[in-house]
Amino acid sequence: MSHDSVFDLACDLIARPSVTPEDCGCQTMMAERLHHLDFHIEPMIFADTTNLWARRGTTSPLFCFAGHTDVVPSGPTEQWQTPPFEPTVIDGFLYGRGAADMKGSLAAMLTATQRFVSDYPDHRGSIAYLITSDEEGPFINGTTKVIDTLEAREEKIDYCIVGEPSSTERLGDVVKNGRRGSLTGDLVIHGIQGHVAYPHLSDNPVHRAAPILAELTQVHWDNGNEFFPPTSFQIANINAGTGASNVIPGQLNVQFNFRYSTQVTDHQLVEQVRHMLDTHALNYSLDWTYNGQPFLTDSGELVEAVKYAVHTTTGYHTQLLTTGGTSDGRFIAKTGAQVIELGPVNATIHKINECVRVSDLETLEQTYYEILKRLLA
Amino acid sequence: MSHDSVFDLACDLIARPSVTPEDCGCQTMMAERLHHLDFHIEPMIFADTTNLWARRGTTSPLFCFAGHTDVVPSGPTEQWQTPPFEPTVIDGFLYGRGAADMKGSLAAMLTATQRFVSDYPDHRGSIAYLITSDEEGPFINGTTKVIDTLEAREEKIDYCIVGEPSSTERLGDVVKNGRRGSLTGDLVIHGIQGHVAYPHLSDNPVHRAAPILAELTQVHWDNGNEFFPPTSFQIANINAGTGASNVIPGQLNVQFNFRYSTQVTDHQLVEQVRHMLDTHALNYSLDWTYNGQPFLTDSGELVEAVKYAVHTTTGYHTQLLTTGGTSDGRFIAKTGAQVIELGPVNATIHKINECVRVSDLETLEQTYYEILKRLLA
Repeated sequence: MSHDSVFDLACDLIARPSVTPEDCGCQTMMAERLHHLDFHIEPMIFADTTNLWARRGTTSPLFCFAGHTDVVPSGPTEQWQTPPFEPTVIDGFLYGRGAADMKGSLAAMLTATQRFVSDYPDHRGSIAYLITSDEEGPFINGTTKVIDTLEAREEKIDYCIVGEPSSTERLGDVVKNGRRGSLTGDLVIHGIQGHVAYPHLSDNPVHRAAPILAELTQVHWDNGNEFFPPTSFQIANINAGTGASNVIPGQLNVQFNFRYSTQVTDHQLVEQVRHMLDTHALNYSLDWTYNGQPFLTDSGELVEAVKYAVHTTTGYHTQLLTTGGTSDGRFIAKTGAQVIELGPVNATIHKINECVRVSDLETLEQTYYEILKRLLA
Repeated sequence: MSHDSVFDLACDLIARPSVTPEDCGCQTMMAERLHHLDFHIEPMIFADTTNLWARRGTTSPLFCFAGHTDVVPSGPTEQWQTPPFEPTVIDGFLYGRGAADMKGSLAAMLTATQRFVSDYPDHRGSIAYLITSDEEGPFINGTTKVIDTLEAREEKIDYCIVGEPSSTERLGDVVKNGRRGSLTGDLVIHGIQGHVAYPHLSDNPVHRAAPILAELTQVHWDNGNEFFPPTSFQIANINAGTGASNVIPGQLNVQFNFRYSTQVTDHQLVEQVRHMLDTHALNYSLDWTYNGQPFLTDSGELVEAVKYAVHTTTGYHTQLLTTGGTSDGRFIAKTGAQVIELGPVNATIHKINECVRVSDLETLEQTYYEILKRLLA
């Protein structure tokens, strides 16, 4: 069995301009290699989104590598020092859109798997790949639909490594063992528009809302816990008025967002906000958008394997954090799987001149290999 | 000396489409009639604005009729039941743009003056007209500039009737003996923009501002007085956010407006707001627009003459109020003149199908006549 180089595979993937929801053959290339390793290949196409489910073995535990082949747009190409879809090495860094988020991770997963299967062809349990092309997009037809399919047939992931770029300064210094939940509220306070000269004929919704907004910004929602900072409430948008200085506005729109820990539920937050609003004399409407439940893998075999692998490979101890935005990990974690995000340094992701240190690709491959070995050898 | 009919003069004026700052010959027509009454005619053109200063006599007291020949735009003419610049009588009402605000008043001033000069050719003191064509506009080159000119040559108005439509249900039921001041504040709260997932790296200006906004809306600025309602603070516009639900805004813009009584000064309001802002940890900037000082004519010969004239003419007692927006009266009052606004019912002003009751024009002429007689006969 031939082994690819992680660098060559990363370059192959970066050269494909797979801006969401395009895949540009990335998954086919990956599937061919997995097929050679006796993976059962199962493309799952949902609407405009290409997904790949591939599995080697039929027994549990089921270990899964999860990731995405899509990338965010390059932005103005003339601002890049090298063309964004022409992988180029300068001073030990591989440049290109997706180098860090997360084609480097996909390459490292593949080459780690090739080596592991070669070294341990009769490993215990199963290895799987859950790859999507819409992680950077609306996440409607990607991981969530694949998970639905797996759950419908009672195929259960036990351990999952998501290749998201979790590292902050050097490879493996941080892994994400959870993410906060995200909940958005769209609040409309209804008043009565009128002329500022006749305030008794109007009802200023900004005045009605000011005390409750002040209250909401000062609530201590929870204390967080060992893994989560306290739940955060932020007003993202606020808007009222016609633009004229002599008109009392008829309506105030406020959009706020919670990033919440596992110490509260979305239901509790919704109820608390509604209760607070109801104690004021307000004519309001409130719509909620549930962006994602929080998840946490606080302990277990996967956490231990990751800690061990990072330490073995790099010599230092990784930090388990739950900071940052949401990720597809939440869809996998809700099935009961242990989920950890482990990938390259994220300093350049979504930016001009995205890059990954070439030597980090090799370190990442080795870390993934050690995790496989610890869990399935 | 020939006497015009107030109705004919009103129709003549309404037929001229003198939308701000156009005059369309209204003032020339008026000046010709005043010239026949031995008024000294002094056109005062400032930039795009036509003004007329006309005076009969050289001694004091100086009684002045003030008003404007410009009108607001008609709006969609197809929504009018009659063409807006074709004066038309239906069911005892004269329709047309400016009928009530305030070409009807100008006609009544003229015919009242014609009758008064005819009856009392050797009246005491002087009669003057201060007519502008920018009252509905930016009030830069109108009454304020004429007043500057008069003050420069120490020509002082003692009594002034402004023809603004002060009446609410029937002619003369309300006269305005003052107006509140208007003061606008543009407040910017500076924060630090960032991702809602990392609130510790941002500084949300909406959160910073919410407590002080709540405070400002709840301040009791004064109690008003016999003639003024309490000072009113209204937030007219508020704005922050990029539109995205995951971005903490970097800046909050708030525009508020005071309508204030003579119990406070603009200086006091500015100082109080600044003091309140300074007690919070805010990075802010604040710009003020001084729209107009309040004025009040609480007593004196003019008030008595107006009360007497309304009662003599209509049989009922007028009410002295200071409600509503600003008017050019404030520029005249600041010279020390006694100022009263007295004009038609204002129910249709600035609206489609503006109109004035034909019989009210005659009553208004008679009221103006009685005021002249009481003060100068």
